[in-house]
Amino acid sequence: MNKTELIKKIKSLSLKNTDNMFLNDFLLTWDKTHDEIMAVFETAEILQLMRKENISPKVFDSGLAVSLFRDNSTRTRFSFSSACNLLGLTVQDLDEGKSQIAHGETVRETSNMVSFLSDVIGIRDDMYLGAGNKYMREVAQSVNQGYQEKVLPQRPTLVNLQCDIDHPTQAMSDALHLINWFKGIKNLKNKKIAMTWAYSPSYGKPLSVPQGIIGLMTRFGMNVKLAYPKGYNLMDKVIKVAENNSKNSNGKFEIVNSMDKAFKDADIVYPKSWAPYSVMEQRTKLLKANDDKGLKNLEKKCLENNKKFVSWECTKELMNTTKNGNALYMHCLPADITGVSCSKGEVQAEVFEKYRIPQYIEAGYKPYIIAAMIFLSKFKNPSEKLIELVNKAKPRI
Amino acid sequence: MNKTELIKKIKSLSLKNTDNMFLNDFLLTWDKTHDEIMAVFETAEILQLMRKENISPKVFDSGLAVSLFRDNSTRTRFSFSSACNLLGLTVQDLDEGKSQIAHGETVRETSNMVSFLSDVIGIRDDMYLGAGNKYMREVAQSVNQGYQEKVLPQRPTLVNLQCDIDHPTQAMSDALHLINWFKGIKNLKNKKIAMTWAYSPSYGKPLSVPQGIIGLMTRFGMNVKLAYPKGYNLMDKVIKVAENNSKNSNGKFEIVNSMDKAFKDADIVYPKSWAPYSVMEQRTKLLKANDDKGLKNLEKKCLENNKKFVSWECTKELMNTTKNGNALYMHCLPADITGVSCSKGEVQAEVFEKYRIPQYIEAGYKPYIIAAMIFLSKFKNPSEKLIELVNKAKPRI
Amino acid sequence: MNKTELIKKIKSLSLKNTDNMFLNDFLLTWDKTHDEIMAVFETAEILQLMRKENISPKVFDSGLAVSLFRDNSTRTRFSFSSACNLLGLTVQDLDEGKSQIAHGETVRETSNMVSFLSDVIGIRDDMYLGAGNKYMREVAQSVNQGYQEKVLPQRPTLVNLQCDIDHPTQAMSDALHLINWFKGIKNLKNKKIAMTWAYSPSYGKPLSVPQGIIGLMTRFGMNVKLAYPKGYNLMDKVIKVAENNSKNSNGKFEIVNSMDKAFKDADIVYPKSWAPYSVMEQRTKLLKANDDKGLKNLEKKCLENNKKFVSWECTKELMNTTKNGNALYMHCLPADITGVSCSKGEVQAEVFEKYRIPQYIEAGYKPYIIAAMIFLSKFKNPSEKLIELVNKAKPRI
Repeated sequence: MNKTELIKKIKSLSLKNTDNMFLNDFLLTWDKTHDEIMAVFETAEILQLMRKENISPKVFDSGLAVSLFRDNSTRTRFSFSSACNLLGLTVQDLDEGKSQIAHGETVRETSNMVSFLSDVIGIRDDMYLGAGNKYMREVAQSVNQGYQEKVLPQRPTLVNLQCDIDHPTQAMSDALHLINWFKGIKNLKNKKIAMTWAYSPSYGKPLSVPQGIIGLMTRFGMNVKLAYPKGYNLMDKVIKVAENNSKNSNGKFEIVNSMDKAFKDADIVYPKSWAPYSVMEQRTKLLKANDDKGLKNLEKKCLENNKKFVSWECTKELMNTTKNGNALYMHCLPADITGVSCSKGEVQAEVFEKYRIPQYIEAGYKPYIIAAMIFLSKFKNPSEKLIELVNKAKPRI
Repeated sequence: MNKTELIKKIKSLSLKNTDNMFLNDFLLTWDKTHDEIMAVFETAEILQLMRKENISPKVFDSGLAVSLFRDNSTRTRFSFSSACNLLGLTVQDLDEGKSQIAHGETVRETSNMVSFLSDVIGIRDDMYLGAGNKYMREVAQSVNQGYQEKVLPQRPTLVNLQCDIDHPTQAMSDALHLINWFKGIKNLKNKKIAMTWAYSPSYGKPLSVPQGIIGLMTRFGMNVKLAYPKGYNLMDKVIKVAENNSKNSNGKFEIVNSMDKAFKDADIVYPKSWAPYSVMEQRTKLLKANDDKGLKNLEKKCLENNKKFVSWECTKELMNTTKNGNALYMHCLPADITGVSCSKGEVQAEVFEKYRIPQYIEAGYKPYIIAAMIFLSKFKNPSEKLIELVNKAKPRI
Repeated sequence: MNKTELIKKIKSLSLKNTDNMFLNDFLLTWDKTHDEIMAVFETAEILQLMRKENISPKVFDSGLAVSLFRDNSTRTRFSFSSACNLLGLTVQDLDEGKSQIAHGETVRETSNMVSFLSDVIGIRDDMYLGAGNKYMREVAQSVNQGYQEKVLPQRPTLVNLQCDIDHPTQAMSDALHLINWFKGIKNLKNKKIAMTWAYSPSYGKPLSVPQGIIGLMTRFGMNVKLAYPKGYNLMDKVIKVAENNSKNSNGKFEIVNSMDKAFKDADIVYPKSWAPYSVMEQRTKLLKANDDKGLKNLEKKCLENNKKFVSWECTKELMNTTKNGNALYMHCLPADITGVSCSKGEVQAEVFEKYRIPQYIEAGYKPYIIAAMIFLSKFKNPSEKLIELVNKAKPRI
């Protein structure tokens, strides 16, 4: 695609009504309008095309991007780094262990102290139900206040890199993958997607991925089935979001109690483990109480409970029951692959391997999704800015 | 402020006699002449104005800035990162745990090995009396020698990010805050500033902040009162610096033994905890001897001793005794706020909150102070270079 | 050297036959042709000259460089950071402790997940015989496959920052030092170099430095003597490489059993400790079995064994036996210096000190060697690109 074609493509996009994204955050997909969600997809695709054409979209000559990871991360960490680097920002990690935060400092203070010359703050905080998203909102409010009080010369944009409620950069990447796989967002209408629990020998996985998926995919008129064993329910408020979304988009949303039902004639399957809701609740309490013994007992009980549902595995046989035996398998990665990363896990090696390359391509959207979220928060007229960048066509290498 | 006004402002500055800052370090404020101190303030303010006007002061196309933090840091770490990033340098942390330094390597060797393409070295080393500043001087001497021996193609500038003696980037930011608050350095003449000890439930805080404050503020003809309980004295040599400074600037410097005396009619108060001098001395010995038990006992004794002075708190009542009941409250942050970060601390929440925004603005000068220190060490004619940058007016975003 | 002279110099270089370096890795020097090795030296020298002339060779407007250090590093870490920074890349460390790799993720997956916008991957993995280089090849193969499957928009180049077999960035820097010291690669012909084991009180040093030296220096027609005590032999396959190289270059390669023999009339000496081969083999097994007690016993045994050869020290007396008593002393640093970094070590302080500056200069080539390896993997016509950069002559500062 040459420069002229790229500009033509940008002009053909809607990229409209992004005013409210300007100097704003990206915390939950369901906080965003349809136009805003579409603007992220469109901007992400243009940035990806520019990269392919060796056109640099560097818009910052300097500026920091703060990263705060309260849980491990590989994919999202590198996606965030890549996105920031692509736009010209330098990541500075806020390592709470090496800071003075334990000193009793308020969130309001820390948020301002790290933001004097920062344009973006990316946070992963997904361990405690009721805490992660709340913390992000407190940070966002703090820097917003700092900006209004002229403490900060710019308003840093907060990007949710996974919280207890949503994992928006993941769900948006997954959705962009579906849009490209099915050749257009319109083709997602009525497609059946099975977001199902799957067995894993590991403990305490957040609920944010399944919640992010049902909270986003229900917006596109899809037929969303959520399946899990008894006790592995998700947050009520996210279920309500999914129900409302599906009504508004003339789609479907249903909770079923077996993988079989969910997989039957599905166009897309997303089998993935998560922790029982009550375990996540108890864990939060025990952690706050520093009850190590209680936590160990809880882990033991949880893993034993998981074992009851070892049959929740994405097998070749199950895949055969999907639409034409050919549903698209998705995962946020890394998956627990039977015989590869564990003796018994979420998916059979054969199934995983068949869809390995599409999954890697799926993961590859995340840097551009994050870059798009940042881009849209920094430019009032993103379309104009993108055209300017393509016209300038500064080579990346 | 538009380009023309900015250039006019730069031309109106003295920014003179910075020759000796070129290819030199910033270790102690009292090593610097009046003109050099003024040049840092002036350059910092211009850099801050440029940032507000979205003019990038990037002067390095590449180059590393080495950071070495031997103690925790949030504010200074992000200020250093921000300053380096603003000028075009990339921070590479020297993590002694992940290096081969334990291997018995000399300071001279490490200093050169990390400096082949490095323009700046920032060090925090504030834990041991008699050690931190000494270490910095050894590093500075090593890279200077390396530069002269043509081992290094450039002379890296060392910036003291807090040592056992001084915390120059903090004291300079504090002073710039005062200059702006009182609308000109001339207005600091005869202003009464109370640098006083305050109670904190924490242990082993360095002496470098109060030392830095009395070592710098005595240069501006201020009336500096230092107050602390028995045993919390500072280094003799810094007291002598303060005495000399105050003589030369026709100011005052006095040590008093109560907050009341220091606060009475003060224009500015700076209540902040630090460790007893003898505890810092003993700690250094015990640490060198790896005497864990001795260290625990010392901590216990020190905290018990602190408790005797729990009444050293910056209260509303005390604030009422200051000039017009309206002195400016300052702190290097984070403060130990009673009822917020601890049950009993340095300052009442009400007092802290009243001055919260000015304090955040105070902290916000640090990135520009550090950037100015680096800038002045890299350009022989800083005024000319600043005008060149404003004329070019490359947008930051 | 002005622009015209620099361009004249670039045009005078051969820099030929680098086609196979394009989009390729640098894992072992003996995988590379003579022309390729020469191209690295030539490019490194031009980059160093450009830096001296304040000409920026930044060729990337954005892009990540992944670093993965499975062993401690100061010199190589900063050299890698410097090289990447010089070319315009930003280093993002892959910290396996903070990632989800323990989760059972495959090397293939991790390699792709960190590479979506990455141009370079630098790896140090030197602890386990038979493992480090193998791991690098798996990473290289994975990203190559990812590039071919269009998962990755670019082919990241892998640079071996030390493995179990070779330490190519070290050996190449050492060789460039020799070329400059003896004023031309032709003058290395028949020069006698003593790569000898030396006593050290430390344990488990990799074999990759001596292997790298004999694997590379034998290519230049040098007279290479390898000396070690019984049991401290190197990998058979590297010995074979050295034998073949020396035949092809009309040089000599011989293993002797004393420092005396190796040093006698040597032009260059490289005395350096390494672990006994059998210890490295056992350690790998014990580590895989998580046998902590076994590892402690092994360390004890190894250190005791080392002590038998405490006389293997590079002394002034030994140096007197070299060619004109004036051989060039080399070390990859940090050295175990008797009376400085340990009570008894590899080299006497007096000998070390005499050659300290040349050694620092030797170490200073590494950033340019790494930058050259990256540069040659990214440009099909490196000579043309270098001339373009010199013509543009963008100032670094």
